[in-house]
Amino acid sequence: MKAVQDFYPEELSHCYGCGSLNEHGHQIKSSWDGDESVAEYTPKPYHIAVPGYVYGGLIASLIDCHGTGTAALASYKAEGREPGSLPPFRFVTASLLVQYLKPTPLGVKLQLRGKVVELKGRKVISEISVYADGEITARGEVVAVQMPEAMLKSLL
Amino acid sequence: MKAVQDFYPEELSHCYGCGSLNEHGHQIKSSWDGDESVAEYTPKPYHIAVPGYVYGGLIASLIDCHGTGTAALASYKAEGREPGSLPPFRFVTASLLVQYLKPTPLGVKLQLRGKVVELKGRKVISEISVYADGEITARGEVVAVQMPEAMLKSLL
Repeated sequence: MKAVQDFYPEELSHCYGCGSLNEHGHQIKSSWDGDESVAEYTPKPYHIAVPGYVYGGLIASLIDCHGTGTAALASYKAEGREPGSLPPFRFVTASLLVQYLKPTPLGVKLQLRGKVVELKGRKVISEISVYADGEITARGEVVAVQMPEAMLKSLL
Repeated sequence: MKAVQDFYPEELSHCYGCGSLNEHGHQIKSSWDGDESVAEYTPKPYHIAVPGYVYGGLIASLIDCHGTGTAALASYKAEGREPGSLPPFRFVTASLLVQYLKPTPLGVKLQLRGKVVELKGRKVISEISVYADGEITARGEVVAVQMPEAMLKSLL
């Protein structure tokens, strides 16, 4: 299944977290799995907090990007449109809350699962859970808002 | 002035955000400036959200690490000890909240300024503000807790 990021216009595909054109970045891909959005990422060995565990800032970054991706996925679905149809949905983060429930082990693929908590006007709130080896290690809430028109126009 | 991270034991200096031994990481340095803690970082050109602006995940990462650094600084101060004196203080993040107030311009040095909101037992809460060109662009709250003894012992 194609990810929502695969449909972002080229000008909006530079994001360090999820831009397909950012060769230095994480290039995460968010897609539906039933009613939840999913993304995966395997941290690099240098994404370390203390030996054996993943750096919390990376976890925050993944939650952030999967949250804005989830917001876009949910907005297309709410309008009964496929990702890639026009006009494009592209979100920025208004606020990000991350709760670190336990240390996240380094060396395994992480799975992010998102649920839409609220979709209202230009705002989408999602809850993102991070799993390592099937256990939840962090939980986040992302308040995403559609990119301001002026910003979007200046970029496209 | 030396930063608190310069006094972390070698085993605790691998953090991607602030470890002096992580050659891939941000290596931020947190020190006092009066009653506030400060750190600086200039995002790389690829730390981009959309053209011209800094990736929010990086901002979250910087806030996270400066928050745990601020917690360590505050704990030494509360005990009337210099960073580097024993035993070492080393914190992990329990929760992180970031509010993105306006887009953060790419291409300038960012300054992070931290204030201790609460220091109680093994927990320190700090408020971290991010400035670009003298304007505040993001504000974070970091709840940091001292690394569990078992984890610390397993690492040292």
